[in-house]
Amino acid sequence: MCGTCGCNIPQTAADGHESVEVLTGLLDANDHQAAHNREHFSEHGVLAINLMSSPGAGKTALLEATIEAFAGRVGIAVIEGDLETENDAERIRAKGVPAVQISTGSACHLDAHMVHGALHELDLQGIDILFIENVGNLVCPASFDLGQNFNVALLSTPEGHDKPAKYPVMFRAADLVLITKSDLLVVLDDFDPGEVSRYLRQLASSAPMFELSAKTGDGMQPWLAWVEEAKA
Amino acid sequence: MCGTCGCNIPQTAADGHESVEVLTGLLDANDHQAAHNREHFSEHGVLAINLMSSPGAGKTALLEATIEAFAGRVGIAVIEGDLETENDAERIRAKGVPAVQISTGSACHLDAHMVHGALHELDLQGIDILFIENVGNLVCPASFDLGQNFNVALLSTPEGHDKPAKYPVMFRAADLVLITKSDLLVVLDDFDPGEVSRYLRQLASSAPMFELSAKTGDGMQPWLAWVEEAKA
Repeated sequence: MCGTCGCNIPQTAADGHESVEVLTGLLDANDHQAAHNREHFSEHGVLAINLMSSPGAGKTALLEATIEAFAGRVGIAVIEGDLETENDAERIRAKGVPAVQISTGSACHLDAHMVHGALHELDLQGIDILFIENVGNLVCPASFDLGQNFNVALLSTPEGHDKPAKYPVMFRAADLVLITKSDLLVVLDDFDPGEVSRYLRQLASSAPMFELSAKTGDGMQPWLAWVEEAKA
Repeated sequence: MCGTCGCNIPQTAADGHESVEVLTGLLDANDHQAAHNREHFSEHGVLAINLMSSPGAGKTALLEATIEAFAGRVGIAVIEGDLETENDAERIRAKGVPAVQISTGSACHLDAHMVHGALHELDLQGIDILFIENVGNLVCPASFDLGQNFNVALLSTPEGHDKPAKYPVMFRAADLVLITKSDLLVVLDDFDPGEVSRYLRQLASSAPMFELSAKTGDGMQPWLAWVEEAKA
């Protein structure tokens, strides 16, 4: 019973318990599929990296710059996740790299089944690294294992340095944090990379953190070195 | 059966149907509560506006600037939604306006029950406009009616002009689209407001679209006029 207005609408959904059970079941099924994807990657000697961020934080631009930097040295493939459009996969293919677009419709994240389906369209022969660009969303993707080896969370400078405090699930799940669009720091007077680091440590995260600009190329080297070491 | 590897994991979750049924039930319960919230607002003569955007697109900064512009003329209250922290509510209270923070934990959106709970902590007497700042997420919040009168979607210039095409559910739900952080346009060579408009129209949206900068105050007037007209 609502004390404000005397209505008899319960203040939590009546079917809350049931939905929790179904969610648990879905996550169990997802984890099972993710473990299977991981075996797939391992058998093919493929390193799988899951890129997650807010919309427009520069995941595709990072991939474009990374592909250019590794050209001829490292075999790369990409799985792109978006609600709609094939735009990102087309940008990747324009760099000469195979890319499969997953259109999630209204779903806010990739799951292990979607990635498994995309693997059917990818020849992993000769691939060293598979980048999975998740749906732009700083909440939901963090809860779904895709079978990746590493999670990388991007935080673009215009979003503000408080995001690890406000989106802790994502930043706790990150094995590496990339501060992107560092070229905009000259015009942003309210973004302090030191604060990002401080908020990260408050989450008990020991993930390394690099600043870079895919646009200017500044700061790409530590990221590329991290990828190469992860691959080794 | 998976054709790639011969495993017997189904390619869609076995319990997909059940989860759809539960989701439908949750949305029905949400809609019921939202209708009740709407009656609440109507009885108190309160206009409720739901602000939605990606993380860091400037929802709180817009509210700060709006509160300053309406100071002494319009009674404003704010409900803030975040996974964690009381930061945004504190920023609003510092402007002399009542604000209730909803901490969603790991939930990626506000729902009508959460808003109803927050209303118990708000005295709507003397309030003309209630702004509800949703969780920063360009996907999930669009699917949950809170009882608001209007949905406003913010798109910040650094996110890129293609977002209506990639996040159609959000932009179809928007009654008004605000392009925020217009002060950054001088350093962004790849954002064209005309393209945002074109993508919006492709979604058959006739929502008006304004560009503004809460930081410099440029472009605030059409937004303030829209709010005043909505309130009338």
